[in-house]
Amino acid sequence: MAKQQALVTLLTDFGLQDGYVAAMKGVILTACPRAQIEDISHDIPAHDVLAAALVLEGAAPYFPPDTLHVVVVDPGVGTERRILAGRFAGQAYLWPDNGVISMIAERGPAEELVAVRNTDYLPHRTVPSTFHGRDIFAPLAAHILNGVSISRLGPQPDTYKLFDLPPCRQEEQDIIGQVIYIDRFGNLVTNIPVLAVTQHWGDLDSVAAQCGDKEAGTLHGAYGFVEPGQPLVVFNSSGRVELAVNRGRASDMYQAAVGTEVRLRGK
Amino acid sequence: MAKQQALVTLLTDFGLQDGYVAAMKGVILTACPRAQIEDISHDIPAHDVLAAALVLEGAAPYFPPDTLHVVVVDPGVGTERRILAGRFAGQAYLWPDNGVISMIAERGPAEELVAVRNTDYLPHRTVPSTFHGRDIFAPLAAHILNGVSISRLGPQPDTYKLFDLPPCRQEEQDIIGQVIYIDRFGNLVTNIPVLAVTQHWGDLDSVAAQCGDKEAGTLHGAYGFVEPGQPLVVFNSSGRVELAVNRGRASDMYQAAVGTEVRLRGK
Amino acid sequence: MAKQQALVTLLTDFGLQDGYVAAMKGVILTACPRAQIEDISHDIPAHDVLAAALVLEGAAPYFPPDTLHVVVVDPGVGTERRILAGRFAGQAYLWPDNGVISMIAERGPAEELVAVRNTDYLPHRTVPSTFHGRDIFAPLAAHILNGVSISRLGPQPDTYKLFDLPPCRQEEQDIIGQVIYIDRFGNLVTNIPVLAVTQHWGDLDSVAAQCGDKEAGTLHGAYGFVEPGQPLVVFNSSGRVELAVNRGRASDMYQAAVGTEVRLRGK
Repeated sequence: MAKQQALVTLLTDFGLQDGYVAAMKGVILTACPRAQIEDISHDIPAHDVLAAALVLEGAAPYFPPDTLHVVVVDPGVGTERRILAGRFAGQAYLWPDNGVISMIAERGPAEELVAVRNTDYLPHRTVPSTFHGRDIFAPLAAHILNGVSISRLGPQPDTYKLFDLPPCRQEEQDIIGQVIYIDRFGNLVTNIPVLAVTQHWGDLDSVAAQCGDKEAGTLHGAYGFVEPGQPLVVFNSSGRVELAVNRGRASDMYQAAVGTEVRLRGK
Repeated sequence: MAKQQALVTLLTDFGLQDGYVAAMKGVILTACPRAQIEDISHDIPAHDVLAAALVLEGAAPYFPPDTLHVVVVDPGVGTERRILAGRFAGQAYLWPDNGVISMIAERGPAEELVAVRNTDYLPHRTVPSTFHGRDIFAPLAAHILNGVSISRLGPQPDTYKLFDLPPCRQEEQDIIGQVIYIDRFGNLVTNIPVLAVTQHWGDLDSVAAQCGDKEAGTLHGAYGFVEPGQPLVVFNSSGRVELAVNRGRASDMYQAAVGTEVRLRGK
Repeated sequence: MAKQQALVTLLTDFGLQDGYVAAMKGVILTACPRAQIEDISHDIPAHDVLAAALVLEGAAPYFPPDTLHVVVVDPGVGTERRILAGRFAGQAYLWPDNGVISMIAERGPAEELVAVRNTDYLPHRTVPSTFHGRDIFAPLAAHILNGVSISRLGPQPDTYKLFDLPPCRQEEQDIIGQVIYIDRFGNLVTNIPVLAVTQHWGDLDSVAAQCGDKEAGTLHGAYGFVEPGQPLVVFNSSGRVELAVNRGRASDMYQAAVGTEVRLRGK
């Protein structure tokens, strides 16, 4: 039998300083020596499920078919929240049932979905663990990489947790949304889908933005289309409207945070 | 001959921004192309040997047998401090003789131990190096990964440096320890072993903590067992008592630092 | 045919928090499943081409022959700046034509050099992209890893962008340079080449430094040759003069920034 690939990604809020992620990798490599482990991010703000969902959406779909994505952003460690395993768009996912899968689930239906309950693949419950990433998620990931099918891990749940982004709305001719994520460059990702803009305005050149009470530039194809220090609106790489400043930080320029209102209007 | 695995981890205080870790990886991959390199942490506070020892203990034992762990947290670069190589619990280690191996050595005896001195495997001394990670540790690691046995690297040393954690003590019915590590979540790891607690109190539900002069919650199985924002005491994933706040930062709540006193008492 | 290695490094200013680097890795692994991806750094200050050039020089040459190094520190995304591919010292490079290759090019001539223009290997231009790392550089990297020769990617350019470090100068018997990079430890890397010092002074023990208007120690073989907290001058691991403080931060001690003058003189 040809050696199959066993590609797995990790997305956590553990940070890289304390060695927690390494412990997870050690467990996976011990149980599945041929695993190839890649990091999506470990610097999700602690317990920030929305940020994790957005980062997952921006990275996971670009990995090869059959990649396993393990998400451990999990404020509910130790509570009764379930662990889910599923398959979306030909890739496998393992995540705590807190909605972190929402942006992936929005892109298409679950091809497979179970609540992990099979005690053959779960550690004994006698000793409680504060580190589910290492003690539960990593062994489960290794089982899946070793060929255990998702359907064997447990029964299909009746429901599972999904959240919606705050909706954007129309007000006369304007589209009103808000900042949902701020990236390393200070770019402001909004909840306004690109599609909402292209369907609303025929002439995209006429679209201008306001962030809070400040003017926030007009729509351009890429950062470099305006002078350094100048603001602009772009369609970002995940299909959302984004406010940016060429070689600058929109978050600073507009003193914006997650939740700040963003308004698009025709000029 | 079947392709052997050549798994090596790196633990340094180099940070990831400057490319120093990458230079080490390049050297290893050049001398041993089949090496598989994983990071334990590179964000150990500069020169903090105790933090490195604790992070090493929390991650290294979870890797497969025969993994080589290379530690370069090394305030003594350029001095006469030795480089040691050894084997503990079926895994290989390479480290500067500054005590960073202490927590691993505490778990069981060295199965093999040498002071690296064989000039066949050391660079020429004619040009001094400020970057022992790249110029000494990485080539040594590649030699070990390529099959050079540790025993060939040098003679067994008479002694080597180990440090003890500050001891915890009993005062009447209380156990008194201190904070020894603060993790990314602001959790406070103490020097109090879980075993000291389970042997001291029959009824674990009655154990409460004080951090400095502040009340610090009672013992629970996991973070999620108390309400968000509430403090608790847990047995952490390395077998030590830890003070935490569910979805919060114990370090901020108690204004604690490494060295802050922690007292456990029966209620 | 034996399985060839497909080793690729990434150097960006994307940070690791947002998953942008992971998206690039996903694209590469999808198109070239046997790719082995290593990070040089993703924490280059945003848009800092000089810092990226110095970090590249400090790490890339240590990787094996034929490694592909992909640099995406690219303030010109969306403008007409070209993407170049080339070969230096037996390794392949892919970079935006903004001078980031300067320190590598300084070490020896390009063995191969093209401006990437072959539309067989570039995405269609109909939809503008704000994320060239994922949408242009990563697919190009995969093509090269899959065996597309650099010469097929486009024509040789007439010129390409290179920058010089600010020159250091001689003033009477002193050598005057400046800080060009500050690393994680607060060490101050200068533009003064080691060679300039060794050719200028026969007795290296007599060389002392000044940083701004503060005394900055004398030349030593390694950090540990002076007491903790004491300043020193070292020849750093990239062949440049560096100001350091043993177990301390020279950047803090001298309140130095990139551009601060550094003067070397005989005692």
